[in-house]
Amino acid sequence: MKSDELFALLRRRGVFWPSAEIYGGTQGLYDYGPLGTALKRRIEEAWAAWFVGLSHDYYLIDPAEILPEAVVRASGHLENFTDPEVICDTCHNAFRADTVLEKIRPEGVDGLPSKEIEEIVRGRGVKCPSCGATTLSVPPPFNLMFGLDYGVTGHERAYLRPETAQSSYLSFPRMWDVGRHALPLGIAIIGKAYRNEIAPRQLLLRMRSFEQAELQIFFDPEHFPLPFDRVRDEKLPVVRAERRLAGDEEVVLTSAADLVSAGKLPEFYVYHMVHTFRFFRDVLRIPPERIRLLEKSDQERAFYNRLHFDVEVLLDSMGGFKEIGGVHYRGDYDLSRHGQGSGKDLSVTLTGGRAVLPHVLELTYGVDRGLWAVADVHLGKDGDRTVWRLPPYLAPVPVGVFPLIPKEHAKFAEQLSDDLAAAGVSNLYDDSGTIGKRYARMDEAGTPFCVTVDAETLADGPSRGTVTVRSRDSKTQERVPATELAGRLAPAFRLPRPKRSA
Amino acid sequence: MKSDELFALLRRRGVFWPSAEIYGGTQGLYDYGPLGTALKRRIEEAWAAWFVGLSHDYYLIDPAEILPEAVVRASGHLENFTDPEVICDTCHNAFRADTVLEKIRPEGVDGLPSKEIEEIVRGRGVKCPSCGATTLSVPPPFNLMFGLDYGVTGHERAYLRPETAQSSYLSFPRMWDVGRHALPLGIAIIGKAYRNEIAPRQLLLRMRSFEQAELQIFFDPEHFPLPFDRVRDEKLPVVRAERRLAGDEEVVLTSAADLVSAGKLPEFYVYHMVHTFRFFRDVLRIPPERIRLLEKSDQERAFYNRLHFDVEVLLDSMGGFKEIGGVHYRGDYDLSRHGQGSGKDLSVTLTGGRAVLPHVLELTYGVDRGLWAVADVHLGKDGDRTVWRLPPYLAPVPVGVFPLIPKEHAKFAEQLSDDLAAAGVSNLYDDSGTIGKRYARMDEAGTPFCVTVDAETLADGPSRGTVTVRSRDSKTQERVPATELAGRLAPAFRLPRPKRSA
Repeated sequence: MKSDELFALLRRRGVFWPSAEIYGGTQGLYDYGPLGTALKRRIEEAWAAWFVGLSHDYYLIDPAEILPEAVVRASGHLENFTDPEVICDTCHNAFRADTVLEKIRPEGVDGLPSKEIEEIVRGRGVKCPSCGATTLSVPPPFNLMFGLDYGVTGHERAYLRPETAQSSYLSFPRMWDVGRHALPLGIAIIGKAYRNEIAPRQLLLRMRSFEQAELQIFFDPEHFPLPFDRVRDEKLPVVRAERRLAGDEEVVLTSAADLVSAGKLPEFYVYHMVHTFRFFRDVLRIPPERIRLLEKSDQERAFYNRLHFDVEVLLDSMGGFKEIGGVHYRGDYDLSRHGQGSGKDLSVTLTGGRAVLPHVLELTYGVDRGLWAVADVHLGKDGDRTVWRLPPYLAPVPVGVFPLIPKEHAKFAEQLSDDLAAAGVSNLYDDSGTIGKRYARMDEAGTPFCVTVDAETLADGPSRGTVTVRSRDSKTQERVPATELAGRLAPAFRLPRPKRSA
Repeated sequence: MKSDELFALLRRRGVFWPSAEIYGGTQGLYDYGPLGTALKRRIEEAWAAWFVGLSHDYYLIDPAEILPEAVVRASGHLENFTDPEVICDTCHNAFRADTVLEKIRPEGVDGLPSKEIEEIVRGRGVKCPSCGATTLSVPPPFNLMFGLDYGVTGHERAYLRPETAQSSYLSFPRMWDVGRHALPLGIAIIGKAYRNEIAPRQLLLRMRSFEQAELQIFFDPEHFPLPFDRVRDEKLPVVRAERRLAGDEEVVLTSAADLVSAGKLPEFYVYHMVHTFRFFRDVLRIPPERIRLLEKSDQERAFYNRLHFDVEVLLDSMGGFKEIGGVHYRGDYDLSRHGQGSGKDLSVTLTGGRAVLPHVLELTYGVDRGLWAVADVHLGKDGDRTVWRLPPYLAPVPVGVFPLIPKEHAKFAEQLSDDLAAAGVSNLYDDSGTIGKRYARMDEAGTPFCVTVDAETLADGPSRGTVTVRSRDSKTQERVPATELAGRLAPAFRLPRPKRSA
C-alpha cells in the first residue's frame, strides 16, 4: 500500500493518529490507540526477549529521560547535535539541508559551515521544494535537543535526552556494582528520545518524540567471549561502504565467516550483526530479501563510531529502503567522555586485577519505525480481504471470541473470554454483526485466531463444549474443546528467543 | 523500615537510584534498575488487567506526552497550575508555601495571592526550615509545567503534560469513532507526566518526571449501568470531609450501600471506590487497615471536581498516610473546556438520538508511589532474613534457578532456565555462592519460588528429573518434576481480574 492509504487504514482502526487531533494536530507527534498500544508493547517485549535474552548478564533498565546539562555537554550533544537547515524566505518553510541538496551533494553536508552550504544553494540556484522560489537561505546551525528550565531557581538547564544510550552510559558504574562484576555487561533501555526535527515528515519514521530500544554491551576490548562457530555459516545481506562509494549499492549475501576473514570485521561485531538480522527475519518475520545491512562510510558515520551498519527494510509505502535499526561499535568514546565530564574514573577492575575502560557495542532499534515496518510488510489485500499477517506473538488482539447468536451463546462466550484472559491470553469479545464481518474486522487487526461459540457448543453429544477455531492465514476451521483452547494456542504466542551466547 | 534504610537497600539491589548519579544526581529524578524496571512493568500490567478489565469498552492507549499550548490554555493549566513558593533570602532554598505554613494555616494557601502569603510569613515571623533565618519571601506564582520551544520557527510553545488525563480527553472523539459508539467508554493511559516541583523530596513520592496510570470513564450522566448489587455489602474505610473539618480524622468502615443511602454519594461513584479499594487490597495486597479513602473538602479539591477521594496508604517509611491514588468525578468540565478551546462540538449522539456531552469519572494511580508502597509494606525483616513478600504476580524475578553444584548441575539448570523462559516464566539463573546465600538474595528481591537442580535430579530412580521448589513465604521445599514446573507455578502468577461490570 501507499503511505496515505496505509495511514488512513491504521487511523481508522485506531492504531495511531496525529496527536491533539481536535486542535489540528501537533507536527511530529502521534498518539497510539488501543491496537497500536498493544502492538507496540508486544514489539517491545519481543525485542527484550531477543536482545536481553542474549546473555544472563544483560539487563533491562528504565532511567529518567531528562538529562542535566553537564551530561549533554560531556557527550558532545550540546555542541554538535545540529542539523543544517534551509529556510525559504518566500513561503517560510524549513527543510533539512541534506534533503534539499540530495542530488547535488549525495555525500551529505555534515560538518559544512552554514555559509558554505548557503553558497552551494545560491550558486546552484536551488529552488524551494515547497513553493519553487529561489529564495532559500541557511541560518546558523540549530540544536535538535529540547531544552528545559529545570528547577525553581531559573538557572538550571536540562534536556530531554536525544538518545536513550546516554542514560545507559550514566548507569554503567551502578550496574557494575549491581551485576556480577564481569564483562561483557549489557544494559538495555526501551524508552523515549526526543529531537526537534526540522522536517518531521514520513509519519512514524521521523517523529519529535519517539521510542528507542537499545542495548549497550560494555566489553573488554581484549576479550569478548562468544560462540562464533554457531553463526559462522549465516549469510548476511550486506552493502559495504567501499562498494557504495564506488557506486554499487547491490546487496551481497556474505557468510559471517567471510565477513570476518575477507571482510576484516571483528568476530564480536559480526556475531551481533547476525543476531540483529535474525531479529528482523525470525522475530518480526520481515522477508529476508527486504532486509539489508548497509555500512556507513567514514564521512557518513559519527566520528566516534568505529564501525556502523544500518539495518534497513524495504518499505513499499515509503518507496525504498529505510533505516529501522543499527549496529554501532562506539569504542571507549562514551565512558571516556563521561569520565572526563563527571571527574570519575569509569574503568573497572577485572578478576585478575587488570583495569579496563570498557568499549561499547550498541544495538539499536526504532520501535515506532519498526511498528510501521510490520504494517507495511504484513498488512495488505488478499482478494477481497484486508489481512494483517502479523506473527501471532505480536498480534495486538491474539484471539477474537464470538457468540454465533449473541442471545443464545453470549453467556458461554463471555465466560470463555474471561477464562482465556485469566490464563494470560488477551482477547476481544465481539458480538456485533455477522460472523463474516467479525472475521473481517479481526483480519484487519492482525488477529491470528477467532473462536466461535455456537449451537454445537451447548448441544448434547460429542461436540458439547467444543468451539470452532478459525485461522487467519489458512482460513481453515477446527473444533476444539474450550477447556483445551489456551493450551493449544499457547505455542503460537511464545516469543522467539536466541540461544544464549554464554 | 525508615525511609533512608529502605532506600539504601533498594539502591544496593538495583531497584532504583538517583538519576545521573555520577554527576551528583538530578533533583527529583530517579533511574529504575533491573528489579525496579521489572517490578514497575508488572505493577502496570496488574493495574491494566484490573481497571481496563472492568469493561469490554475500556481501552488502553498511549498518546504523546507533549501538548501544544492551546491544549494547556483550554485545560486551565497555563493560568492556574501553580504552587505558591517561599524562598529564603539567606540560604536561597525554595519551599512549598503550604508546607512552610502547615501549622499556621492547615487549610492550605490555594488561591491566596503571593502578597497575602508574604504578609502571613512576615507577620508571624516564620523561620526558614533549612537555615532558621526569618528572611523568607514569596515570589510571584510559579507554573509547574515544563515548557518547550517546539518546532524550528522559535515561535511555537509546547509543554510536557502535567497529567496523563489531558491526553485522554483529546483522544475522546477519535476513540468514540474507533469504539462501539456507546457510553460508558473508558480510556486508560499508563505514561509519564511532568511537574517542575518546587521541593522534590520524599524519593519516589514527589518526582519531576513520574508515571501515572489513569482511567477516564466517559459516561452519560443520566444513565451509568452497573451491577451495584454485587458490591453493596463491601465495607470501605472512609474519612468524610465533613467530619475532618470538625477535627475527626478517624476511619469509619462504611458499607457501599450506606455510602449511597446515608452518605449521599452516587452509585456509580461508590461502585468505583469499591473497585479501587479492592485493587489496593486484593491486587497490591496492602493490608486493609493501612488503606483509607479520604474525602477532600470543597476548599481542598480542584473546583471542577464534584467529588474527590484520595486513596491513602499508611507508609511507615514516610511516617504516615500518603496519597497513592484517587477517585475523581470531574463532571463535564474537561470536554466542555476542550470543546471551547478547539472549537469542536465534543458531544456524542446516543442510540435513540439524544446528544450528550459525557461526564468523566477519573480513577488515578501513581505508579512510582505505588512501587514505593509495595516496598514499604511488603519488604522487611523476618528474624535474620530480609524478605520482600511481594505477590508472586508482581515479583520482578518470578523464579530463581540454581544448580546446587555448578560444575555438575549447570547444564540441566541452564536448560531448565531456558525452558521456563520459553514457557513465559521469566527467571534468574544464579550459580554463585552457597544455596543459602542464593536464597537470601532472592528473598530480598521478592522472588516467591527458587528451584534447585541437584544430584537427585540427574540420578536414576524415582527422583530422576525432579527439582526442589522452595517457597519464599513458607520456607518449605517440595520435589517437582522439572517438566511440570511451569504448569504448577502458573496459577500463582495469574493477575487478579475483576468481575466484568457489563
